Amino acid sequence: MIQETAIEKCSVRGVRLYEMRHVLDRVRGNLAVCNFSQELPFLPQRCFQTYAIPDDRTRGEHAHRHCSQFLVCTHGECHLQVDDGEHCEEFCVNRPTLGVLIPPMVWAVEHLHSQDSVLMVLASRLYEAEDYIRDYDEFLTMVKTGGTTP
Amino acid sequence: MIQETAIEKCSVRGVRLYEMRHVLDRVRGNLAVCNFSQELPFLPQRCFQTYAIPDDRTRGEHAHRHCSQFLVCTHGECHLQVDDGEHCEEFCVNRPTLGVLIPPMVWAVEHLHSQDSVLMVLASRLYEAEDYIRDYDEFLTMVKTGGTTP
Repeated sequence: MIQETAIEKCSVRGVRLYEMRHVLDRVRGNLAVCNFSQELPFLPQRCFQTYAIPDDRTRGEHAHRHCSQFLVCTHGECHLQVDDGEHCEEFCVNRPTLGVLIPPMVWAVEHLHSQDSVLMVLASRLYEAEDYIRDYDEFLTMVKTGGTTP
Repeated sequence: MIQETAIEKCSVRGVRLYEMRHVLDRVRGNLAVCNFSQELPFLPQRCFQTYAIPDDRTRGEHAHRHCSQFLVCTHGECHLQVDDGEHCEEFCVNRPTLGVLIPPMVWAVEHLHSQDSVLMVLASRLYEAEDYIRDYDEFLTMVKTGGTTP
């Protein structure tokens, strides 16, 4: 079975759910594909993976001023909350074929990690400490004033 | 513990083993990072993941004329053979912090997949059927004649 990439909107501004093009093959094994330059609004400059996360641990809890991210839970599962200051949604990310695009100025939280979860994040920019908004009230103020830079 | 990225050569031409920069933290969970534009010789244009591979199944068994790849087994493990026509090495890739850079004109084979293995491959080019060399004898001939194009 070959499945083309399907991209869905949700109520949170700019967030997209990708069900990636994939091939399921019981004999040869499965394959999931993402063509960055054709499907994402950015070419990733870096990736990071989080793993062995205790199940009571919340990660994320920040927004980015400029950085976009594409998250894939390559093994296991976790829950992902996204919040643009107006709308909030939560997804269970639980398969290598599911990617979540998070644009700048969206607050994201990961929690309820299964013991074997591996979350891969592809980012549009290198790490910049000043790109992080770690205070939720500050985030809401910036959303209301329309400011994406300090 | 914070560990900087360490890059090691092996006997196979152009193959590099990356032990990625990582943070091990029992309370918050672990993190592994790769800054593509600083550490890889290419910016990935696509990624694919192989998963649910039967343990008796061999994958790969080809070389690329032009495409470079960076392989990370994000969960579980598999064995990776790399061969430049002169030297051959085999590695067990078994952790999110270990990446293997495979340049063009290196024959690669994956086998002995654990049931839970997920292999992520970041590629320097979009898929091009004509970039694959799937016949080992043809590969050896090309290596001997120094040709990287047909």
